[in-house]
Amino acid sequence: MSTNAGTARYLEIAEALRRAILSGELPVGAHLPSESDLAARWSASRGTVRQAVATLAAEGLIGSRQGARRIVLRRERRHSFGELNSFAQWAEGLGHRAASRFLSRTRRPATAEEADRLALPPGTEILAVLRLRLLDGEPTMVERTAYADWVAAAVEALPVDSRSVMDSLAEDSGVTAHYGEHLIDALPAGSEDARLLQIRRGSPLLRQRHVSATATGRPIEWSDDRYRAGSVTFSVSNSSVATPLERRVGEQ
Amino acid sequence: MSTNAGTARYLEIAEALRRAILSGELPVGAHLPSESDLAARWSASRGTVRQAVATLAAEGLIGSRQGARRIVLRRERRHSFGELNSFAQWAEGLGHRAASRFLSRTRRPATAEEADRLALPPGTEILAVLRLRLLDGEPTMVERTAYADWVAAAVEALPVDSRSVMDSLAEDSGVTAHYGEHLIDALPAGSEDARLLQIRRGSPLLRQRHVSATATGRPIEWSDDRYRAGSVTFSVSNSSVATPLERRVGEQ
Repeated sequence: MSTNAGTARYLEIAEALRRAILSGELPVGAHLPSESDLAARWSASRGTVRQAVATLAAEGLIGSRQGARRIVLRRERRHSFGELNSFAQWAEGLGHRAASRFLSRTRRPATAEEADRLALPPGTEILAVLRLRLLDGEPTMVERTAYADWVAAAVEALPVDSRSVMDSLAEDSGVTAHYGEHLIDALPAGSEDARLLQIRRGSPLLRQRHVSATATGRPIEWSDDRYRAGSVTFSVSNSSVATPLERRVGEQ
Repeated sequence: MSTNAGTARYLEIAEALRRAILSGELPVGAHLPSESDLAARWSASRGTVRQAVATLAAEGLIGSRQGARRIVLRRERRHSFGELNSFAQWAEGLGHRAASRFLSRTRRPATAEEADRLALPPGTEILAVLRLRLLDGEPTMVERTAYADWVAAAVEALPVDSRSVMDSLAEDSGVTAHYGEHLIDALPAGSEDARLLQIRRGSPLLRQRHVSATATGRPIEWSDDRYRAGSVTFSVSNSSVATPLERRVGEQ
């Protein structure tokens, strides 16, 4: 797990506090040390300490201020952004085997929706990919991704059983995702889904559509991932000061 | 929409910046004013400004630092925590009609899972509720909620067509939710689901299970909400510094 601003002081402090919480040194219900204690211990400004604390609050590990101090709310390792964006990184991090197979890679003009999601001029040529993902040998997810024109050649060059497109783009081309926007819903399996996942047509699928974007907000990919019901669960934390989760009407 | 710490200076600054972004005054791609400019304009410390900026970054509205400044990433109204937690508040905020009906309210000992999710001693008596939610007159969601013993009487006292349990608990008992933990997956409709939602047994449902907790982390309710496929989509933003969304293996 790497952070994009690994040297920022507040991230160091946040990481040390996170470790104390995850290890149980600061148990659930415990008060976090006061801002001035933390500032003294880390020889940091109150502003820097506040930023570290806000980071943990946004992750849901600690609560909002109750009087002068905050309390520890949960003790659970959150996955990294990379683990969410890379099926392989995620599965391997949990001790599972992941396998992938490109079933097709085709250049074609972007549909109106793809152009919109990828912030490309209408009709720009994208790379459309169909890919099957297996977890411990079981067909688990069908991925249909449109890659932006500027990463298409790099994705085409990957071997058919490439472990992780995002990891390869990072290593080979220095392209890394920093932002994600996810739409999660349920739908019945279509014929292609059913055949690839070895389930009946109409069976429930959990769908996660998402855009991944670079640190400057440039979209890299727009993907439609369909999971066999029962194979995965998404988990989201939110709070009255950080509400990353929304419910929207219809299929969006 | 109300915030829990409405008087905190950094939240005021965050709200003003949020408004500038949502109104388009600061368009997507624009640079946020520098920290020192913001500090001067608001007569605030750099630390306070940093906290305001970190809040918007956690919401995904602005990016992580690129050199000295941050850029605007998206222009989209995020819903409030209350809108996510209250089906009625959410639907009405979007101009839809919401209706609800308690189908049963039963006191019984908590199951092992309910006791665990609600942080209650095993066997504590909870209030088990079955409720149907309609959106614009359409049966949309079946809700099965276990309310903690200490709010059971307040929920029992509500009328059968009570608009919003969470709003009523806040108004009548001063109990408000500040934290949520959500598990989202897909599953086939069981017979009760199918009958209530007027769909076929086995049809895809989008399930959102969640715990709501008070500002001190005390769980209020553990709920299993099942939406007809196609009726709603969940949306989540994340970034390499704020990863509220996770994928987990299996049904959890």
